Amino acid sequence: MYYENKCAKDVKIGYIGGGSRGWAWGFMSDLISAPDMSGTVCLYDIDKVAAEKNRIIGEQYNQAEGAKSEWHYTVADTLEDALSGADFVVISILPGTFDEMESDVHTPEKYGIYQSVGDTTGPGGIIRALRTIPMFEVIAKAVEKCCPNAWVINYTNPMTLCVKTLYRTFPKIKAFGCCHEVFGTQRLLSIALNDYYNTDVYARDDIRTNVIGVNHFTWITDASCNNHDVFGVYDSFCDKYAETGYSTKKNWANKAFMEYQLVKMDLFKRFGYIAAAGDRHLAEFCPSSWYLKDPQTVDSWKYALTSVEWRRQNLKERLGKSEAMLSGEMPITIKRTGEDGVNQMRALLGLENMITNVNIPNQGQIPNLPLGAVVETNATFRANEVMPVYAGNIPNELYSLISRIVGIQETVSDGATERDLDKVFLAFIEDPQMNIPVKDAKTLFDEMVANTAKYLTEYL
Amino acid sequence: MYYENKCAKDVKIGYIGGGSRGWAWGFMSDLISAPDMSGTVCLYDIDKVAAEKNRIIGEQYNQAEGAKSEWHYTVADTLEDALSGADFVVISILPGTFDEMESDVHTPEKYGIYQSVGDTTGPGGIIRALRTIPMFEVIAKAVEKCCPNAWVINYTNPMTLCVKTLYRTFPKIKAFGCCHEVFGTQRLLSIALNDYYNTDVYARDDIRTNVIGVNHFTWITDASCNNHDVFGVYDSFCDKYAETGYSTKKNWANKAFMEYQLVKMDLFKRFGYIAAAGDRHLAEFCPSSWYLKDPQTVDSWKYALTSVEWRRQNLKERLGKSEAMLSGEMPITIKRTGEDGVNQMRALLGLENMITNVNIPNQGQIPNLPLGAVVETNATFRANEVMPVYAGNIPNELYSLISRIVGIQETVSDGATERDLDKVFLAFIEDPQMNIPVKDAKTLFDEMVANTAKYLTEYL
Amino acid sequence: MYYENKCAKDVKIGYIGGGSRGWAWGFMSDLISAPDMSGTVCLYDIDKVAAEKNRIIGEQYNQAEGAKSEWHYTVADTLEDALSGADFVVISILPGTFDEMESDVHTPEKYGIYQSVGDTTGPGGIIRALRTIPMFEVIAKAVEKCCPNAWVINYTNPMTLCVKTLYRTFPKIKAFGCCHEVFGTQRLLSIALNDYYNTDVYARDDIRTNVIGVNHFTWITDASCNNHDVFGVYDSFCDKYAETGYSTKKNWANKAFMEYQLVKMDLFKRFGYIAAAGDRHLAEFCPSSWYLKDPQTVDSWKYALTSVEWRRQNLKERLGKSEAMLSGEMPITIKRTGEDGVNQMRALLGLENMITNVNIPNQGQIPNLPLGAVVETNATFRANEVMPVYAGNIPNELYSLISRIVGIQETVSDGATERDLDKVFLAFIEDPQMNIPVKDAKTLFDEMVANTAKYLTEYL
Amino acid sequence: MYYENKCAKDVKIGYIGGGSRGWAWGFMSDLISAPDMSGTVCLYDIDKVAAEKNRIIGEQYNQAEGAKSEWHYTVADTLEDALSGADFVVISILPGTFDEMESDVHTPEKYGIYQSVGDTTGPGGIIRALRTIPMFEVIAKAVEKCCPNAWVINYTNPMTLCVKTLYRTFPKIKAFGCCHEVFGTQRLLSIALNDYYNTDVYARDDIRTNVIGVNHFTWITDASCNNHDVFGVYDSFCDKYAETGYSTKKNWANKAFMEYQLVKMDLFKRFGYIAAAGDRHLAEFCPSSWYLKDPQTVDSWKYALTSVEWRRQNLKERLGKSEAMLSGEMPITIKRTGEDGVNQMRALLGLENMITNVNIPNQGQIPNLPLGAVVETNATFRANEVMPVYAGNIPNELYSLISRIVGIQETVSDGATERDLDKVFLAFIEDPQMNIPVKDAKTLFDEMVANTAKYLTEYL
Repeated sequence: MYYENKCAKDVKIGYIGGGSRGWAWGFMSDLISAPDMSGTVCLYDIDKVAAEKNRIIGEQYNQAEGAKSEWHYTVADTLEDALSGADFVVISILPGTFDEMESDVHTPEKYGIYQSVGDTTGPGGIIRALRTIPMFEVIAKAVEKCCPNAWVINYTNPMTLCVKTLYRTFPKIKAFGCCHEVFGTQRLLSIALNDYYNTDVYARDDIRTNVIGVNHFTWITDASCNNHDVFGVYDSFCDKYAETGYSTKKNWANKAFMEYQLVKMDLFKRFGYIAAAGDRHLAEFCPSSWYLKDPQTVDSWKYALTSVEWRRQNLKERLGKSEAMLSGEMPITIKRTGEDGVNQMRALLGLENMITNVNIPNQGQIPNLPLGAVVETNATFRANEVMPVYAGNIPNELYSLISRIVGIQETVSDGATERDLDKVFLAFIEDPQMNIPVKDAKTLFDEMVANTAKYLTEYL
Repeated sequence: MYYENKCAKDVKIGYIGGGSRGWAWGFMSDLISAPDMSGTVCLYDIDKVAAEKNRIIGEQYNQAEGAKSEWHYTVADTLEDALSGADFVVISILPGTFDEMESDVHTPEKYGIYQSVGDTTGPGGIIRALRTIPMFEVIAKAVEKCCPNAWVINYTNPMTLCVKTLYRTFPKIKAFGCCHEVFGTQRLLSIALNDYYNTDVYARDDIRTNVIGVNHFTWITDASCNNHDVFGVYDSFCDKYAETGYSTKKNWANKAFMEYQLVKMDLFKRFGYIAAAGDRHLAEFCPSSWYLKDPQTVDSWKYALTSVEWRRQNLKERLGKSEAMLSGEMPITIKRTGEDGVNQMRALLGLENMITNVNIPNQGQIPNLPLGAVVETNATFRANEVMPVYAGNIPNELYSLISRIVGIQETVSDGATERDLDKVFLAFIEDPQMNIPVKDAKTLFDEMVANTAKYLTEYL
Repeated sequence: MYYENKCAKDVKIGYIGGGSRGWAWGFMSDLISAPDMSGTVCLYDIDKVAAEKNRIIGEQYNQAEGAKSEWHYTVADTLEDALSGADFVVISILPGTFDEMESDVHTPEKYGIYQSVGDTTGPGGIIRALRTIPMFEVIAKAVEKCCPNAWVINYTNPMTLCVKTLYRTFPKIKAFGCCHEVFGTQRLLSIALNDYYNTDVYARDDIRTNVIGVNHFTWITDASCNNHDVFGVYDSFCDKYAETGYSTKKNWANKAFMEYQLVKMDLFKRFGYIAAAGDRHLAEFCPSSWYLKDPQTVDSWKYALTSVEWRRQNLKERLGKSEAMLSGEMPITIKRTGEDGVNQMRALLGLENMITNVNIPNQGQIPNLPLGAVVETNATFRANEVMPVYAGNIPNELYSLISRIVGIQETVSDGATERDLDKVFLAFIEDPQMNIPVKDAKTLFDEMVANTAKYLTEYL
Repeated sequence: MYYENKCAKDVKIGYIGGGSRGWAWGFMSDLISAPDMSGTVCLYDIDKVAAEKNRIIGEQYNQAEGAKSEWHYTVADTLEDALSGADFVVISILPGTFDEMESDVHTPEKYGIYQSVGDTTGPGGIIRALRTIPMFEVIAKAVEKCCPNAWVINYTNPMTLCVKTLYRTFPKIKAFGCCHEVFGTQRLLSIALNDYYNTDVYARDDIRTNVIGVNHFTWITDASCNNHDVFGVYDSFCDKYAETGYSTKKNWANKAFMEYQLVKMDLFKRFGYIAAAGDRHLAEFCPSSWYLKDPQTVDSWKYALTSVEWRRQNLKERLGKSEAMLSGEMPITIKRTGEDGVNQMRALLGLENMITNVNIPNQGQIPNLPLGAVVETNATFRANEVMPVYAGNIPNELYSLISRIVGIQETVSDGATERDLDKVFLAFIEDPQMNIPVKDAKTLFDEMVANTAKYLTEYL
């Protein structure tokens, strides 16, 4: 990597999970849109054929309309090949297959436990973590060996435990986890301002927010936009849409992701702080009786339980899209994602400073959560620097909800690292969704482990 | 107060709740048994007649067999009279009457929420706290005015919130909260050792323990006794009595307090740390599905839901006992309580050093709980000194269970101090026992508040 | 204040010390150069005539070449008038006169104690603090009363104690202290890069730095610029100029401020971290035998003891310049200062985000310094937000040097707040420059207090 | 080791430095006086002949008048032999010989730097630490290998750095450092009480103290004794003896250790906290101009610069005493030391609880000093437990004096561990006694290193 005319040239990115259909294309779009950065992306995927297809697609982005730089794509045979010499490592993998995810999300339904996502927390999130953590141990060791100074950006869920594992395995790693859930809430706040002032001037970037919490259960404790009372405006907004909810889409073609913000607004009206993630995520961190008691309750809050069946269908569509792009049937078009990833890279290269929310270990940015636990707050992004910004204490009203999650995640981390399923089970029964007797919980746990045993051999 | 021949003379104790039938007599017994301390106890009670009766009974202890010192009793007209010039203040009150407690404990049953005690945590504990906190604000202000250097010993529940309120109202107060629940577990450990080694030499005092947690949800993370493996011995004990449970009593005449330690032993076997309170208390801090799902679950764990009806009956008996003592029908006999209270006073007077568990604000003795939250750990007791002993972090497996309770208690403290029932309700729905929808919880909350409104006028 | 087309209009600034000759004009230049901000500056000064002259000069900036906005100036009769309705408060005052400063700086010379600046630390800085702290108490109270939500920017020395006093008096104040000393070092690093790579492309803003310490004794623990090894390059630079020193000026017309960076470079070579303030300041925080033993030692390090006589001369020149501007003899020209002040205001107004170093109380940004002590680290500046950025621990090698200063400053704060000269004297004899017996130190202290007694009536 | 009738039998103590003439005999006296403990002491010393002589003397204590238990002595060939199977390890060694100590203490005098002890801090203490730290690394590793569960008690100076090295090398070590300096001050307080009340009833144990600081620079921030105002009484005492000083001895036969408490009393009168170590130690931690400017200054404070020549003479006497005991010429008599060591062992064996001051890493007992730095505060001693007691923050007035020492010691620890003399030199020039230019300090440092090079081969 070198600099020329305020541009970073020959940047090397190792992309783990590079065979992705969908996420990868957004990343390619963002990369090719950054005029001051160019280089090579080395794709690595256990499905090497998929990676190879993305390589071809990736190269085509250089010819897309609006391309502002040049990025070349290669495919690595091994993880180590992908990482050697990398300036950045991007991790976006599916730990296991949709078969395992099917078990994660739907097995608990037999016990009356419903999950709207099932990849972060709850029984599904915990079992998914069991598969994921050993994979991230391997990645962290490879980073230590092949590119110890690279910046590692994780997009994989369960986010908190992925980042925790990276630091636990290689404490000097320069890693952070990125998630767009807060952005959606910032966008909602800008909508509320526009709605209130009957204008359309405000966008996400106009809202300055202070963020605290853990990934997918983040809260905004302070916000500014010009000299407006953002909390007051949002309060009116929540009143206005208390019955109908608010949705950016008229019709939810994709019902699986439907959200009318009613959970988010209910939490704000109760707690006085702005819950800042999608309703499907927020619900999973609250006591089960609040929003996830049963499908009727979910309906009443106007959001959805995303089924894995839907994900399978959606993958089929994306596979079709992949083939269409490969055959040239579908032209390559740049579609920006609105994510911060590429801008974070630019910031780390010194091209533009940035302050945004990110998942890293607590070094005191949230004084009343344990040091070392992975939390989500703002951080500065500058040349070769990610530094947490002081975010303040978790307010007392939220401390019970958030600290218990931190304890669960730390326990899953311990149990998985020690390959101790009994310890993991302690976290399992402490989860807010686990409203069943311990004996039943054990049966469920064993069943979920058995269902996904192919990926859990190190524990068994 | 002065010293003579290594004895403390003319010690003045202000006793708030001095009309108590039962607890007061144990305290009188302990006082009269301490050979190196004498003085005056000034009884204060809103039931002045009861205080007057205890005055007479108290004086009679001076003639009881085994009396080793001399204590005189007076009755105060006002709280301030009771506290003026006090060296020690003892607080042991019933906030409200059994009518309120009836509502605290039994109203939630209509909603399927069962409470084994209902005075510390859970819906009952929280509503009781609402009555209690303003009373403790009054007491703290009176201490500040009348005896700012006195040591204040609280025995009232909810312990954590009583102590919190004292410090919140008068930050320089020298207060701590005493509870005997840990002692019972220390006794159980000595029994386990005797059982294992087929001996009877071990007693509670032979077991050195490190205590962490919050009142009634305390845990022993380390224990020693000679060169024995106390945790190992207890593990065998738990295996041996896994089916039958273990009870110090052959028959539980008083079924209302029945305990076979099965909850305690179950928690130990799962978590690897020794849960150190009575089963009836421990159960209330765990998720409701674990031990308090319904009365059948409670039966299966062989402990009891203590009804307020039983307490009413028991009070009648104690009233009878009071009259019998007053009339001389029943002779005054010294019955030591096994509590640390009087020895703590002796320690604070410099007569004998002591290390025991106590409830005080966190100053770092548990680094991963918030500073200022009231926690239970060991402390040193010496001449005019109570200093917390470093107890270490809450282990990750327990952190979820304990930290959520701390958050709830801090929120109740905030809400009650601010007379903000909406904020208190946030704690109410965060409680582990609140497994019902928020709407139902609100109905329950409103009903419980209405039932006890006589004592909640400051909020309404 | 309101927003129009991404500009902040009608911004109100209360300027305490608004009669300044020099600093005020730079501030006026910076203000008029910001295209997206306009409003009114209300000047307050105990020398009201001087403020009135600056009002006239200030208005003239609107006609200067290059003016990009419009700022109007008024003069306040009272502090409260100046602050009422302010969005920002700027404090830049001289506590006392040059007569007092003469005593601060030069009286210790009789005892063999030499000070290169004498306004921050050392005997001079401490006595100056005695005058300053009561003034800042008055200011903080006026802010609380007149504009509690205003952002307060302090430029006055002793910086640390000024900011400390603001927070100590009005804990919810939104205040921070600005100082350009770090900028000079960032500039020096860019020079070193240009020197090393034989180019001229690098400027201060290209260097990303992590800053820790206390004002005027700040250190850079990490720096980045493109993919260069900034520390390595600076190491070579220090070797290259080890003998001659390095100066941006060929000839020091103004010998009183001469600096050849030899102290800075010596500290870097020893400690491995980049000392980031002017040599005249750095020297005063180190043990007196290092750089301030006597004038010969100062000469050997090629920096200067700035005399107050020089300041008097300089003031005369500036008074002349003031008259010349008033008479129109000297045209008003915009001269940007290179300071961050106006950009910080723009950031706080939400016009552009910023990350820069600033003096605020420690909330954990430096974990191994006491909470609440005022420290200098980076902070984020965004719409209505200044949040400290985590800076990390003071390295062990520097901890002795820096922590002792923090203790001294906290003690001066305590002593001055309590108007307790005996306590202040403890700080006085703990200062690194106080290498004389305690008895002599007392004589010196008394003499310095007597010399400046006019401003110390509250202590006497 | 086993227990029988509340006695600990067959206790194994590994004694490193077991050839000591003097200290060993006191330890033997204390051991033989404890009725509830018996066992074996395994002596290890690089001077094996000396250890063998002590073995013979040690056995003789069993026949001494007043012997209450039975202790047998063996001699180990190797360190590992001495530690294998040990329940306790006692470390009391001289790192190097008096030749090295001669250099430590007296070489700096050529540069005008005087040291009253020279074994803890100052140039002498730092150079001594260089010799000592590698030795303690060896010991810690041997403990890890041979007796990882043993309690390790250090008496060697520099205390702080010895204990730091043990924990740094083997983080799970159960080690603490014992020092009697605080006891002397507690004794002085009891004398002050007796003096004030014209009685003789008070002894050291009657004074309850809160202790903070680092070894040999400890401070009492709170004290109680009955209902007396201990600080007030001590204040009167300091006034009464302000001129003459106070000494427990009429004539100082041994002038080398002469102390009239004038330094201690001066520090109390200035700072309001009770400096709690011998004057010779206290002086070395204060700025050199306070008490150690030159020999005349030392004289004026009526304490002594202990010369190594005196130590050589004293050793000769002790060698003579050793021979006299061996030959039977001098009868073995039990002389209790007044140290806590044997009682601490008894407490760790569960025979009697104890609260006393001790040197261990900071885990929060002093919140405003860095975690992990070795500090001296109270701790509980109970069965297999040493737990720090919360001691509170270093008061601001003392923070400058104490924190700078902590920084110096941590830097010496880093430098010595890394065998980096340049880093150690940074600590050297930060020391309060180093009032000379850095160049001269370097010459001195090099000379002191050269003088003791025989023991510093790992650095050179």
